[in-house]
Amino acid sequence: MSHLPDPDIDLAIRLFETLRTQSFDGLGVTRDTYGAGEQRAHDLMQNTARQLGLETRVDTSGNLYITLPGHYRDRPVRLTGSHLDSVPAGGNFDGAAGVVAGLSVLAGWHTAGYRPQADVTVMAIRAEESTWFPYSYLGSKAAFGLVDASVLELPRADTRQTLREHLSTLSIDPAAFGRAALNPTGIDRFIELHIEQGPTLVDADIPVGIVTGIRGSFRYRDMRWIGEYAHSGAVNRRYRRDAVRAAALWMTALDKTWADLEADGEDLVVTVGQLSTNPAQHAFSKVAGELDCCIDVRSISVPLLERFDQLLRDHALDTARATSTEVHFGPKTGSQPALMDTKLIAQLTALASARAIPALAMPSGAGHDAAVFAQQEIPTAMIFVRNQNGSHNPHEAMDISDFAMATQLLSDILAADHTAM
Amino acid sequence: MSHLPDPDIDLAIRLFETLRTQSFDGLGVTRDTYGAGEQRAHDLMQNTARQLGLETRVDTSGNLYITLPGHYRDRPVRLTGSHLDSVPAGGNFDGAAGVVAGLSVLAGWHTAGYRPQADVTVMAIRAEESTWFPYSYLGSKAAFGLVDASVLELPRADTRQTLREHLSTLSIDPAAFGRAALNPTGIDRFIELHIEQGPTLVDADIPVGIVTGIRGSFRYRDMRWIGEYAHSGAVNRRYRRDAVRAAALWMTALDKTWADLEADGEDLVVTVGQLSTNPAQHAFSKVAGELDCCIDVRSISVPLLERFDQLLRDHALDTARATSTEVHFGPKTGSQPALMDTKLIAQLTALASARAIPALAMPSGAGHDAAVFAQQEIPTAMIFVRNQNGSHNPHEAMDISDFAMATQLLSDILAADHTAM
Repeated sequence: MSHLPDPDIDLAIRLFETLRTQSFDGLGVTRDTYGAGEQRAHDLMQNTARQLGLETRVDTSGNLYITLPGHYRDRPVRLTGSHLDSVPAGGNFDGAAGVVAGLSVLAGWHTAGYRPQADVTVMAIRAEESTWFPYSYLGSKAAFGLVDASVLELPRADTRQTLREHLSTLSIDPAAFGRAALNPTGIDRFIELHIEQGPTLVDADIPVGIVTGIRGSFRYRDMRWIGEYAHSGAVNRRYRRDAVRAAALWMTALDKTWADLEADGEDLVVTVGQLSTNPAQHAFSKVAGELDCCIDVRSISVPLLERFDQLLRDHALDTARATSTEVHFGPKTGSQPALMDTKLIAQLTALASARAIPALAMPSGAGHDAAVFAQQEIPTAMIFVRNQNGSHNPHEAMDISDFAMATQLLSDILAADHTAM
Repeated sequence: MSHLPDPDIDLAIRLFETLRTQSFDGLGVTRDTYGAGEQRAHDLMQNTARQLGLETRVDTSGNLYITLPGHYRDRPVRLTGSHLDSVPAGGNFDGAAGVVAGLSVLAGWHTAGYRPQADVTVMAIRAEESTWFPYSYLGSKAAFGLVDASVLELPRADTRQTLREHLSTLSIDPAAFGRAALNPTGIDRFIELHIEQGPTLVDADIPVGIVTGIRGSFRYRDMRWIGEYAHSGAVNRRYRRDAVRAAALWMTALDKTWADLEADGEDLVVTVGQLSTNPAQHAFSKVAGELDCCIDVRSISVPLLERFDQLLRDHALDTARATSTEVHFGPKTGSQPALMDTKLIAQLTALASARAIPALAMPSGAGHDAAVFAQQEIPTAMIFVRNQNGSHNPHEAMDISDFAMATQLLSDILAADHTAM
């Protein structure tokens, strides 16, 4: 790999600065999905690519493709990229780092006259942040022709205008939206570089993560515990049907089960993020007759998700019996885990070692466009960059030296032969 | 006691029917504090007493006293009674049963020509239900001169008119409100008959309860658990500062401690009746950074309340440490327990046995006017009547045969000599 030209990190620094300036909202950065903020970022990348002499193409859904032609243009393309939109008042690197990294690699190669064997394409993906339109992975799914026309009528959370209206504003033809632009068999590999969005790499003091899989999930968003309202002084323990007590005992049992599974090496996160007694009925002097809550469970393992779902339900029913309460689970929703390609993981591990780049194998708890590629059975991998202060907030931060190491690894894996590993 | 005339239960039945008819609100009964509903009930009792030839008197706070003169009018009076107000859409027996029982006893005695040694007085107390004016035991405290003038400015929850305005409407002079009408040294004993308001007697299949004490309480109405909001997928267990998890573990630890104390024979009830994550910040996909809750703890034992407060705080601080969260207790409020007179309890127990009335010794979880009398160091006791379907709701129910047994016991204890026991 030593003959491979370096990525153009100076270009990356300039792009990050311009991105931040053009999308600063007074607090953080806002690049609104299918809006002016996201469009400015796409324009910046397209213009930069053209100035570098790279090929550019935009699909009917507004996704941008920047290509450095390979020696053999009929070979399956090596694809990298990420999204350019952000949450409102978010950070500058969430998504954009993956596009900037890809462009840095192509710029470095192209300027040095290096030509890869097959085409290498950087994809700037639309609409990954579902805070705007209530739909996961809208841009990447559209590129594969996986969305139906009903999505055009989805309203954006802030403007209440439909996707159809937003597309029209950007001169994207709604009638052609979602037409397949990518064919899975024409893609050799997809590599997404992204900031971690969690504290694992910071805590481990390691700059780069190699993602083993993207966690899937199941959720009960409308769980209810039903007991009976009663006088807090006049009704003794044995006569109570206390919805709060039931939920607390259940959550504690789950927490213990989670700790045990984690000790056994299982990948799992369990979150009760919302819960409440009923404000119309509760009082400090009443045993609570109702409690609403939701639970979000994630793992990279489908069997573990299924097993934990059973344990969760068993614990709930046992607790309901023991506390004379009822539990209603409500609808179950969720997403499938996406495993990263084991050969690509092994290659990335070897490449990091060869470069003496400290890298940690880890699951991704958050969802990413890479899940869509993996589900299309395209060999897929993700490179995480250590980031400070979490994500989806203005304090999100990333050291450019960490980014440079991750981008070097991206360059190496895009250039690597299958057989060379 | 066999020479003692029977209470007039037919009168009680007629009074209950009239009370129900005149205070039916379409759903339950409403006898609003210092309002038309309570006043109608006071008028009914006063008119009935006059027709029976009993003495009546109204103090400057609107409390009504109905007296059957004794042989020796200078002896300390034997007092019984309860309140006549109700919660909105409440039951017919909560409070009123105690006044009706007293009047049945006096009517039975007077009609049969029985004259007690000392005066026996039935007190119809004002304003026990603090749902109307936010003040505990307003009527009985006013009778002892224990309230200050500031209570006149308290607004009633429904009308938003002040107590001063409500008194004026009833032609009660606000300037004379709260003037002491009772002198503790002039009262030989106070006996309150009341429905239980809990399921203990129903469950035990016993018609009558002899109250050992009225539980006191402590409360933290504004407790907060503070953690850190985080991505539910991207942040692993060890990095979490989960306010919901902390609260659940704490509640479970408290529940265990409560069960242990109860197994040791301690009187205790523990209630987290309200809790909620912050609706402005929470999400099903976020680890919760905040949880608000309140806790209400009651016991007849002051040392146990103090001990449990310490355990509660220790558990909370231990849990906060273990979960990297913070806990803030906020202000502590509460009330003192009131112990019933041990000699009166022993007398009641013996009298019930002599009449073959099944009676259960039990604490009162709810507060009652009797607490005010006990705190004035007047020998005080309470007789509970079994009631169905809880209280403070239209479904509250009571069998008249249970009421008759309890009223018989009231008659016996009002007639009993100290020395005869």
